[in-house]
Amino acid sequence: MTRVYLDHNATAPLRPEARDAMIAAMDLCGNPSSVHAEGRAAKALVEKARGQIAAAFGADGADIVFTSGSTEGASLAIGGRKLHGAPVEHDAVRAWTHEDLSVSPTGEVTVTDPANSTLQLANSETGVLQKLPDGLAVTDATQAFGKLPISFNWMGATMALASAHKFGGPKGIGAVLLKRGTDLPAQIRGGGQEMGRRSGTENIIGIAGFGAAAEAAAKDLAEGVWERVSEIRIILEKALAAEAPQTILVGNEAARLPNTLCFATPGWKGETQVMQMDLAGFAISAGSACSSGKVRASAVLTAMGYDEETAQGAVRVSLGPETTETDVLRFAEAWCAKEKKHRARRA
Amino acid sequence: MTRVYLDHNATAPLRPEARDAMIAAMDLCGNPSSVHAEGRAAKALVEKARGQIAAAFGADGADIVFTSGSTEGASLAIGGRKLHGAPVEHDAVRAWTHEDLSVSPTGEVTVTDPANSTLQLANSETGVLQKLPDGLAVTDATQAFGKLPISFNWMGATMALASAHKFGGPKGIGAVLLKRGTDLPAQIRGGGQEMGRRSGTENIIGIAGFGAAAEAAAKDLAEGVWERVSEIRIILEKALAAEAPQTILVGNEAARLPNTLCFATPGWKGETQVMQMDLAGFAISAGSACSSGKVRASAVLTAMGYDEETAQGAVRVSLGPETTETDVLRFAEAWCAKEKKHRARRA
Repeated sequence: MTRVYLDHNATAPLRPEARDAMIAAMDLCGNPSSVHAEGRAAKALVEKARGQIAAAFGADGADIVFTSGSTEGASLAIGGRKLHGAPVEHDAVRAWTHEDLSVSPTGEVTVTDPANSTLQLANSETGVLQKLPDGLAVTDATQAFGKLPISFNWMGATMALASAHKFGGPKGIGAVLLKRGTDLPAQIRGGGQEMGRRSGTENIIGIAGFGAAAEAAAKDLAEGVWERVSEIRIILEKALAAEAPQTILVGNEAARLPNTLCFATPGWKGETQVMQMDLAGFAISAGSACSSGKVRASAVLTAMGYDEETAQGAVRVSLGPETTETDVLRFAEAWCAKEKKHRARRA
Repeated sequence: MTRVYLDHNATAPLRPEARDAMIAAMDLCGNPSSVHAEGRAAKALVEKARGQIAAAFGADGADIVFTSGSTEGASLAIGGRKLHGAPVEHDAVRAWTHEDLSVSPTGEVTVTDPANSTLQLANSETGVLQKLPDGLAVTDATQAFGKLPISFNWMGATMALASAHKFGGPKGIGAVLLKRGTDLPAQIRGGGQEMGRRSGTENIIGIAGFGAAAEAAAKDLAEGVWERVSEIRIILEKALAAEAPQTILVGNEAARLPNTLCFATPGWKGETQVMQMDLAGFAISAGSACSSGKVRASAVLTAMGYDEETAQGAVRVSLGPETTETDVLRFAEAWCAKEKKHRARRA
């Protein structure tokens, strides 16, 4: 039986449009900084992708600085200036913040000083969405771009982080979007690429994939693909609620990403659930994918007020445009069967 | 007439082995930090590439930390600790050094305190090679890996920088090699990837291409491909010396990379030469490719004692494994014709 991939928030499969653009870019041998024809062709490809991303993310007139992904983006946008942040942020953001913003039981963060704060748009583990205050310094929009019809120019934030692999581009390429005229001192220095904000020869093939994926993601959004994903997520929620009514559906009182479902079973470790589901043919996750093998309670759930046992018993299912109703019903059946066994052992 | 690409030190064409490995990697949808089967498959690919690179670069037992390239590598290995360096280093290294090491007229650098110094292995503009002192803190080996039969474990340096696109891998991926047990504090922080030294979801497709390119480059070296490249470079040198004997062959008294030829014509700007050769069908460069459109004298030549007019009149031709004798003789003919016109105008 074919496997079912339900871990799109960790990373999404490469879109065919991105694949094609990357393969085409492989034939360009120039360095975008070179002035000869080969260099100019490479540069044109970078600028084409920049345009695709600006159009897809509502960032016309904004600056788009390519990075190796949102983790580098967080370091570039936030590193060294200690913004206020909440413990529900991704570790790449938490590494640089004063962690003093409060989180409600439904996962909402209160910002008091937007100009000196960072706030994610969507949480990777729970899918909970935040309302961004006007004048926010930085938003980590990594999980939101490509899944929600959002526009950088209307977000109210001065900078936003994006990572291509979260919406069908390749891993290892991302961007910091920033309102034109905003200061952004370089961290990686040298040749002066990206208008002096991020040096290093450009990841041409990755950038080509990023641009094509952004364009395809915007098309999906315009066509309502994610509304269908949301309906399938609700089918999954209902199946779990019917078969395992004691399951805690985390964040289900808040506005959430269409594709993300986090649910907890106190006493049944998330890692164990992930491994059991893996053996049954389903890829899901416990917490953020970033630190492999970590066995600790989700900081996100702890910040929302869940106890240690519940926070350790959470898993995340994240769907993609290709996920079907059959996929999630098969998953629900497999998971509920294991959950029954777990309850039987505990009884 | 087909164009001739003679700018391999700026960036080399993608090797077919790298291309194939990258296309194969596109089918893996997992995040290497995920514990499920898809994640483990992605992780296995990263570790396979790490092994290929260790074998190709004589770095068995060393640690290999993937970065987005040597510019990030320089920031990671050198940033924040102000090593001694020379003005012939790449801008990405110069950004972080005390620039107090002296350079001889033939381009050789004298290091007095190896443990607190950085020294490139090969210069990108002139090809001049350095003898690395034992115990050197960091060597930028970006231009040397894949072109010389060198082994990290025998280099005498504690850390070395590598960038895949200089030897036929993709742009946007590189590594810091370091002796095991060496401290290397992370700059990009978050999920703790690369043993905590460089966070961020790994550039899987790029890493696959890096590994395959390193393996193919090592095979080329073992088969003597670069000795043939060296012979072709010498044919070019002789052709220029015969037709334009007043041309200054920079660094030709020092040991050099097999593929690199830097030559200067005082009073004929390098940028002009690059543009004229581009129109004639040849891709060459003036100085390092990094900062597009810069019109300034080469810092490398200035450090070697050349006057401003000579340093501004230098160009670099850098060959690759696919470069033929016909390619360089066609180039010599085209360049010498322009050089004659230049002399006629000046007369």
